[in-house]
Amino acid sequence: MRLALGVEYDGSQFHGWQFQPKQRTVQGELQKAVSLVANAQTEVFAAGRTDTGVHALNQVVHFDTEAVREERNWLLGLNSNLPHDVCVKWVNPVSEDFNARFSAIKRRYRYLILNRDSRSSVHHQRMWWVYKPLDEHKMQQAANSLLGQHDFSAFRAQECQAKSPIKTLDKLIVTRRDDCIAVDVEARSFLHHMVRNLMGVLVPIGEGKRPVDWAWQVLQSQNRNMAGVTAPPQGLYLTDVIYPDEFSLPTVSGFPVLW
Amino acid sequence: MRLALGVEYDGSQFHGWQFQPKQRTVQGELQKAVSLVANAQTEVFAAGRTDTGVHALNQVVHFDTEAVREERNWLLGLNSNLPHDVCVKWVNPVSEDFNARFSAIKRRYRYLILNRDSRSSVHHQRMWWVYKPLDEHKMQQAANSLLGQHDFSAFRAQECQAKSPIKTLDKLIVTRRDDCIAVDVEARSFLHHMVRNLMGVLVPIGEGKRPVDWAWQVLQSQNRNMAGVTAPPQGLYLTDVIYPDEFSLPTVSGFPVLW
Repeated sequence: MRLALGVEYDGSQFHGWQFQPKQRTVQGELQKAVSLVANAQTEVFAAGRTDTGVHALNQVVHFDTEAVREERNWLLGLNSNLPHDVCVKWVNPVSEDFNARFSAIKRRYRYLILNRDSRSSVHHQRMWWVYKPLDEHKMQQAANSLLGQHDFSAFRAQECQAKSPIKTLDKLIVTRRDDCIAVDVEARSFLHHMVRNLMGVLVPIGEGKRPVDWAWQVLQSQNRNMAGVTAPPQGLYLTDVIYPDEFSLPTVSGFPVLW
Repeated sequence: MRLALGVEYDGSQFHGWQFQPKQRTVQGELQKAVSLVANAQTEVFAAGRTDTGVHALNQVVHFDTEAVREERNWLLGLNSNLPHDVCVKWVNPVSEDFNARFSAIKRRYRYLILNRDSRSSVHHQRMWWVYKPLDEHKMQQAANSLLGQHDFSAFRAQECQAKSPIKTLDKLIVTRRDDCIAVDVEARSFLHHMVRNLMGVLVPIGEGKRPVDWAWQVLQSQNRNMAGVTAPPQGLYLTDVIYPDEFSLPTVSGFPVLW
């Protein structure tokens, strides 16, 4: 049978999602735990392969198993075999045509910025510290110009393996609360480093180093060299992955407490 | 001259606030940094001596120095000499009659509970995980019965050094957001472990293991043995310390992002 899992992790001590023989990865730790509970070597597949340092609040994963366990026993068994920085939030049986990666119809990310004079301590490795005051209204104006279907080559990492640079950005919402800025991004799928590269353009606009229409100019250029830096991974959270209703997956509030 | 500092720390890797010769403490790290920047051995004094594992978002500290530096240089100098899990948010000159501990007129704490089936990963060492569903309305009803001036002996740690067990609880507010519960507590001052012992009574009430009026019964008993457990330190945050206006200290939003 095929099972889906909702997985939360603090990415700061992981070399990203994807299994690598000699590195500590989320996939590696999860495969160890699933294999133990299933009592058979098991491979797991994720909706999105997050990079080193990137966190997830509701990464969705699937795997096939012949082991017969109650859902609650999977949950307890997996969580007691996982290290403290990764946990399983829910377990759900799914049909054989469910694929965590290919069945997803929306992915949501949140990027968190700490915008104040002094660096973080409580939020170390959880936010990008930007000490210059950011104008979140300018950031939102710039963000609006990027919505919809475009060629996002200017926001694409060199090593990106997507077939096409054309993506549709459904939402890009900038919110401030005190000295924190959150940017919520939603699309069916993203290019490699796309959210972090979008941040690398929105932040200089918020700082006033670049005009609002720079975002549109960068997009039009279709040239990675015209854009800004790649924002650091520690501010990025994969918050939700959305699937068609037919798969009846739990809807989990991805971001209960960091905002 | 006398300076006041606003200090934020992640308490999980500290043996509490108070200096101890062979332990890593917040006071110890802060005194090292202040002494370096002041170029003279300097002692620092805090509004509240937090326990091992307890966090602070705006602990207030004062010290005396003969060193003459711009406020901004103090801030930058201190933050570059402090480890990643403690930082200074503001620096403010104060009159000689200011004392971080004795001038405080209110202290605010927030206690965070993660209330869901699965333990935390992203919020490891930042919240108390309670897996039984909590009824926050019952918790609030119970909390209301503790407001005002009472003998809080039942909520006082044995090693507490306060002269009197009589304290005035000004606020005790229970809020839920998704699978998170925050309890905000405000008083002029607290007994040792008082907030964590209050949580040890509110949580069994929220779980339905005890009736709402148990809180009042425990209070009336004035007997620590009648109360519940001491809730774990990792859920507790010193969020704000309030002083009379005459000292003109910055008002910092203590809790920008964890909620």
